[in-house]
Amino acid sequence: MPYFDAASAAPLHPVARQALLASLDEGWADPARLYREGRRARLLLDAAREAAAEAVGCRPDELVFTPSGTHAVHSGISGALAGRRRVGDRLVVSAVEHSSVLNAAGAHASAGGRVTEVPVGRSGAVAAEEFGAALDAETALACLQSANHEVGTVQPVAEVAEACRAAGVPLLVDAAQSLGWGAVEAGWSLLAASAHKWGGPAGVGLLAVRKGVRFAVRGPVDEREAGRAAGFENLPAIVAAAASLRAVRAEAAAEAVRLRELVDRIRGRVPELVPDVEVVGDPVRRLPHLVTFSCLYVDGETLLHELDREGFSVSSGSSCTSATLTPSHVLRAMGVLSEGNVRVSLPAGTPEEEVERFLDVLPGVVGAVRERLGAPGPAATTGGSRALVVDALGRRCPIPVIELAKVIGDVPVGGTVTVLADDEAARLDIPAWCEMRGQEYLGEEASPGGGTAYRVRRVS
Amino acid sequence: MPYFDAASAAPLHPVARQALLASLDEGWADPARLYREGRRARLLLDAAREAAAEAVGCRPDELVFTPSGTHAVHSGISGALAGRRRVGDRLVVSAVEHSSVLNAAGAHASAGGRVTEVPVGRSGAVAAEEFGAALDAETALACLQSANHEVGTVQPVAEVAEACRAAGVPLLVDAAQSLGWGAVEAGWSLLAASAHKWGGPAGVGLLAVRKGVRFAVRGPVDEREAGRAAGFENLPAIVAAAASLRAVRAEAAAEAVRLRELVDRIRGRVPELVPDVEVVGDPVRRLPHLVTFSCLYVDGETLLHELDREGFSVSSGSSCTSATLTPSHVLRAMGVLSEGNVRVSLPAGTPEEEVERFLDVLPGVVGAVRERLGAPGPAATTGGSRALVVDALGRRCPIPVIELAKVIGDVPVGGTVTVLADDEAARLDIPAWCEMRGQEYLGEEASPGGGTAYRVRRVS
Repeated sequence: MPYFDAASAAPLHPVARQALLASLDEGWADPARLYREGRRARLLLDAAREAAAEAVGCRPDELVFTPSGTHAVHSGISGALAGRRRVGDRLVVSAVEHSSVLNAAGAHASAGGRVTEVPVGRSGAVAAEEFGAALDAETALACLQSANHEVGTVQPVAEVAEACRAAGVPLLVDAAQSLGWGAVEAGWSLLAASAHKWGGPAGVGLLAVRKGVRFAVRGPVDEREAGRAAGFENLPAIVAAAASLRAVRAEAAAEAVRLRELVDRIRGRVPELVPDVEVVGDPVRRLPHLVTFSCLYVDGETLLHELDREGFSVSSGSSCTSATLTPSHVLRAMGVLSEGNVRVSLPAGTPEEEVERFLDVLPGVVGAVRERLGAPGPAATTGGSRALVVDALGRRCPIPVIELAKVIGDVPVGGTVTVLADDEAARLDIPAWCEMRGQEYLGEEASPGGGTAYRVRRVS
Repeated sequence: MPYFDAASAAPLHPVARQALLASLDEGWADPARLYREGRRARLLLDAAREAAAEAVGCRPDELVFTPSGTHAVHSGISGALAGRRRVGDRLVVSAVEHSSVLNAAGAHASAGGRVTEVPVGRSGAVAAEEFGAALDAETALACLQSANHEVGTVQPVAEVAEACRAAGVPLLVDAAQSLGWGAVEAGWSLLAASAHKWGGPAGVGLLAVRKGVRFAVRGPVDEREAGRAAGFENLPAIVAAAASLRAVRAEAAAEAVRLRELVDRIRGRVPELVPDVEVVGDPVRRLPHLVTFSCLYVDGETLLHELDREGFSVSSGSSCTSATLTPSHVLRAMGVLSEGNVRVSLPAGTPEEEVERFLDVLPGVVGAVRERLGAPGPAATTGGSRALVVDALGRRCPIPVIELAKVIGDVPVGGTVTVLADDEAARLDIPAWCEMRGQEYLGEEASPGGGTAYRVRRVS
């Protein structure tokens, strides 16, 4: 059964499984103890640390194991901020960081710190110059992901690192999505990653802190992992994480070429097979295995459900698939369509046939969802009224956009349509629809009857 | 090979191993996802939570899985303190809590909070009345372990819980050492535990928070585990933890009887076989599998090393076995001897023969260490001088006590010996020696030449 959500969690790599089993017998004791079981555990821990450090590109004593990638990010950010408290309280992050980074930034802001979000372009990448301009004399830390987890866009880490170096600001790189594919470009000060993203077990993150980076541990002291990760070491999982990182890396170059070609196939053929689709993210500077597209007039939750029924496991950044009913902050920051959003992230080893079958199935699935929602066909002929108002209050994504598309043909070129909507996704998707359709988005204003009025001028 | 340090980490229970293996294939996906792999993971997680909650004695929605027992304690304490911030900032803990509790208390104190440590008696137990008296109107939280990790003494949890209830203060019980043996007595508000202590895998802790207990999560928000434990769930380990807790509990009653008898044998025979030994901890209200004793005139590190050479893995609270060169805070709080300290904690299934062999080997090992250190034999005859001074400055435990014992026979009954020492263990061990030997400890004062002068009067 095709599982296409490696960016959430990859199935366990065979080497991880093997290493985990082997170390269940050898690695359960406390590595801080001096008796033989403890010494054996210590040897395993030291060897795992060396292997992981080599893959990361740091010294073993710069790297600790944490209980998850999220813990690595949280500890890395809070430790670096505390270590540079005297310099200032500004934290600079890109607008498309993983939620673990943005939540840590939120905690910093709640505690009175300042947070600057650097916007991204339509491809999802920051501009290094703009990132550099956000660094001031009171910036304690900057954070940039190596590659985006939702759209696959690779960030200009080396250029941003150079800007940080010039400004004297340490850079934390969240390498969760990319570490299995290769080492992060040089110049980072702190690095965080998560084993279950590369086929290692859950329960293991990495935090590397370069020597010389000021770092002050927050919270209760604990003697383990150089004081940077509290609690008894999860040794079998740590051993499995390190062994699988090495194994995945050995296969990465060849597998990246193969998956890149499969993703290119999806990028090229989905817009041919399915009308009204926007493929998002940088087409070239991207992760090899990940592609995201959004389908107009489609409800993401239904689409995921139908794909699951066909045997495909994918995820989505659409508002209807989120617990908070807001579209993904990544898609929002990029200003791209969020409705009918699908992220495909292929695990290593995905056979070509599964991708082909996905391409076979997708058009019918999208078509059926659209039909059920009463989505409009190709744009209709010129109508009469110069200005129409569509009331979509209380209707959820993708209905407001569908209603807009249905009536745009009813106003003449130069006429306007106003959509009244209170669904959060409309704020992103109505402008995105205008961009895709070549219509002019005039802006939004509060609507006297509640919700927001979005104004669109027909120009073609 | 006999491993007698179950209180540090127990070897993996066969049921844990089996459950871990089974869920490596079924439980690697994100339980928050709606596709089949995610749904399967969610089912496993829900079942594990139900099983663990049943063993703990709480509702499933009161229990979250954390990355370790240490995390459960840290999150439980900080969440409960934050939730009752408006009531006050006092945290009441027993003096013999696990370091994770005391370190969390230390962090609270560093942040300006007040911490009250309730002392223990010579057996290591708090008096419920004294604990209750420490609770005031500004107490936000009280913490008491179910049983002590170093000496095995069971705490009066039900009585203390009643005192807390009367004072309107929530009680957090650290049940790390006892949960495998049975549910904690009723009345707790929060409960923390650690799977690798009962034969589950590393990487899993439990935190239960009763409905109605005010709790405010600190740090970055995270949607997993009801917001109380950040990071991707370590599902295979969680499944293994829950399954093994159930299995261990099914065997606990019979195994407790068997191990209790083996421990009674150690408690009774060690003082017969080895002169000058103090067995510590409550002889009756205690964990079934754990016993601790201290040997006069012995260096703990050498003793552990020699026992390891004989194939026995045990731990010690002696200062020389600690990274900080201070005796265990537990032994210190109890006021018992810390030199030559040995903790034996038997894993479930320990064969009787291993305990017998330990009893065979111990006297020779202790005797050899004493001989090498030049320890004194039985007390010598009356000497001449009324007051002697022994200079043990710069000498480590157990030398100051050995020097004292060597000369006590050189002063007449009524005469005094002053020991000059700068080793931290002397502060605990010289009074403890006096107690064991029936001599009078007169007190300590700063010594003009550096270090501390400990004064002892010969009374027998």
